[in-house]
Amino acid sequence: MFNIAIAQSGGPTAAINASLTGVFAEASKVPLIDEIYGAENGIEGIINDRFVNLRNILTDEHDMELLMHTPSTILGSCRFKLKDHKESEDDYKKILATFEKHNIKAFFYIGGNDSMDTVLKLNGYFTEKGIDIKVIGIPKTIDNDLPETDHTPGFGSAAKYVATSLQEIIRDSRVYSIPSVTIVEIMGRDAGWLTASSCVLRANGEPAPHLIYLPEKEFSPEKYLADVKKALDRYKAVLVAVSEGIRFPGAHYDEHKDAFGHTQNAGIGKLLENYTKEHLNCKVRSIELNVMQRCSSHIASLTDLLEAKRAGEAAVTACIGNNCTGVMIILKRLSNNPYRVEMLTTPIENVANKEKKFPTEWITPEGNNVSIDALNYFLPLIQGEPVLEFRNGVPVHFRLDQ
Amino acid sequence: MFNIAIAQSGGPTAAINASLTGVFAEASKVPLIDEIYGAENGIEGIINDRFVNLRNILTDEHDMELLMHTPSTILGSCRFKLKDHKESEDDYKKILATFEKHNIKAFFYIGGNDSMDTVLKLNGYFTEKGIDIKVIGIPKTIDNDLPETDHTPGFGSAAKYVATSLQEIIRDSRVYSIPSVTIVEIMGRDAGWLTASSCVLRANGEPAPHLIYLPEKEFSPEKYLADVKKALDRYKAVLVAVSEGIRFPGAHYDEHKDAFGHTQNAGIGKLLENYTKEHLNCKVRSIELNVMQRCSSHIASLTDLLEAKRAGEAAVTACIGNNCTGVMIILKRLSNNPYRVEMLTTPIENVANKEKKFPTEWITPEGNNVSIDALNYFLPLIQGEPVLEFRNGVPVHFRLDQ
Repeated sequence: MFNIAIAQSGGPTAAINASLTGVFAEASKVPLIDEIYGAENGIEGIINDRFVNLRNILTDEHDMELLMHTPSTILGSCRFKLKDHKESEDDYKKILATFEKHNIKAFFYIGGNDSMDTVLKLNGYFTEKGIDIKVIGIPKTIDNDLPETDHTPGFGSAAKYVATSLQEIIRDSRVYSIPSVTIVEIMGRDAGWLTASSCVLRANGEPAPHLIYLPEKEFSPEKYLADVKKALDRYKAVLVAVSEGIRFPGAHYDEHKDAFGHTQNAGIGKLLENYTKEHLNCKVRSIELNVMQRCSSHIASLTDLLEAKRAGEAAVTACIGNNCTGVMIILKRLSNNPYRVEMLTTPIENVANKEKKFPTEWITPEGNNVSIDALNYFLPLIQGEPVLEFRNGVPVHFRLDQ
Repeated sequence: MFNIAIAQSGGPTAAINASLTGVFAEASKVPLIDEIYGAENGIEGIINDRFVNLRNILTDEHDMELLMHTPSTILGSCRFKLKDHKESEDDYKKILATFEKHNIKAFFYIGGNDSMDTVLKLNGYFTEKGIDIKVIGIPKTIDNDLPETDHTPGFGSAAKYVATSLQEIIRDSRVYSIPSVTIVEIMGRDAGWLTASSCVLRANGEPAPHLIYLPEKEFSPEKYLADVKKALDRYKAVLVAVSEGIRFPGAHYDEHKDAFGHTQNAGIGKLLENYTKEHLNCKVRSIELNVMQRCSSHIASLTDLLEAKRAGEAAVTACIGNNCTGVMIILKRLSNNPYRVEMLTTPIENVANKEKKFPTEWITPEGNNVSIDALNYFLPLIQGEPVLEFRNGVPVHFRLDQ
């Protein structure tokens, strides 16, 4: 008998708890596994020995069901970068001490490319030292920027929220008789996946968003202005989807960097709003979808939630059934119609600290929209709506504390 | 036989099309009514004779069902202030010409307190001239600031969106181990109703939002800072709900006014974020819920939608059945448990250009939250979820054009 640990890391998504549910459900079926621990605030909780016993918390099917539909991370998260163990072994020793103290033989880390850096380093350390503790990564990010995997759990729900909200913003933007430009800033750091996914509305005959700008293509303000003018000739209310990762040439950015050295690019929407107002005589507004796009579980994609859960289950199978370590679960798309996905593994060095950009061949030659291939890629990911439990008019969330 | 006209005015809501559906459905039952016209862009469409024949557009139950769940105004809207006819009769003559040309004997105007000014003036003009055209107002505003009526159609859906999103933002804000303050700016111009409605989460045992600031109470930055500090002693992640109508003393506001002279108060959230950062050593973020709070039909309140429809039906009954003119439909709450509402009328002069503020007796003595009476008032308004038709992963909207 041995115990296992799970932790969650990086930015919240609507599906990260679904992956935890998957690990828990699958691990519960393995007779060799005794306790299933959750570490608070990612790897920080392992370093500092802050655990909750998930068997005490997830006591029945109803708890599991609620957790599936609760956004963000029930265990908390972190943005902690583990130093190379050759540089400093301190944290590694603490982690090992915690694992040994609790007889933990397998560690499941749900996160994005930064979190996979932790999986890589930890697995490297254990392997080098001949320590038999398995480390498995489970992908999660609304940015969809992990290599090797067709897409990442969490992305589909964010895309469904973005599409649903954009469709409503389109209706809202069309009410007055004067021409208008509405600029919607969408998350995704340096990758344009989430912004590009707004093209799904086209499947329902919606011409908006009329213009889509991604960080994978150099942004020209002059070209943008010409694009908007042209769109205004045809449409009364023009909707522009713009990635937060777009760089406006010459603009001053607040170069705040996080613990991983990523620049925080807030504000392109407002910047473009002001620029458009300066040059065009029409109503201009910018909207930031903000954290709602990563935590709106009330309009999550059922496909995404179920895949997130399957990724959690597959991680347990890979680790316990197939004796894997130092790998991340990846999703391989088998077919689009019917949509089918299989869960595989990839060595962690293939994904850690790496980033998958939106394919430039899916950007239209004009650089202001995306192709039908992109549409076909995105559409299956946003299908299906979860049935939620409501109490007093709002969805019931699973809560550990206040 | 005669014809009727319907128009929509003011800011969009998730329920304004439901009221139109109600007028259409009830008018369709009246044998004396021949055509049912919709005017484009509110009273502007009447002045300029821009009509659509709703019988050609709403052809079956499915159309009606889709329209019920489509946000914003299918006919477009306006912010047009009719001059007093003693000052200038031009627009009145145009309106009359349009009505006479199309044999329109009753006009239904769905809108807020500014739109009711149009109903008041038009009815006054027709009465004075002895013209037999009835004018009826149907209330609509997410601000909930119309007098006489218990609440306004559109408000409940906005409140449900705000509560649902705040609950998700709360989950999102709690993931990291460091203390944080999240400030959410909520719409409502000079009335705090929508911001106050965020208290509904308390019914599910959620302590957040920990602080609620409304324009009905003078805002003191020093007191605010002390409130936040105290909340941080108890809660790791403090959530502040703040009305866009709050005035930060000494701050420079962009005094842009709309056609009705209302100041556009954008930016209090960002202002408070910067102020908090200056004075407190913790993570601070501000979020503007923006237009999503008035157009998120995907999380509309079923209670609200059904009441909005009933208000439309009641307007036809009042006009055709009871021969009323120069009135607005009001909602009277009969009981809370079970929640029951009846539709009545009030003379238009009781509501036009008047504003109902959030009751100060429902604000706690500390001025930073609301009472249980407020909670009991709000709770029934956000109950129930509509069953939506989805296509390609997003709700299907009823669309007239591109």
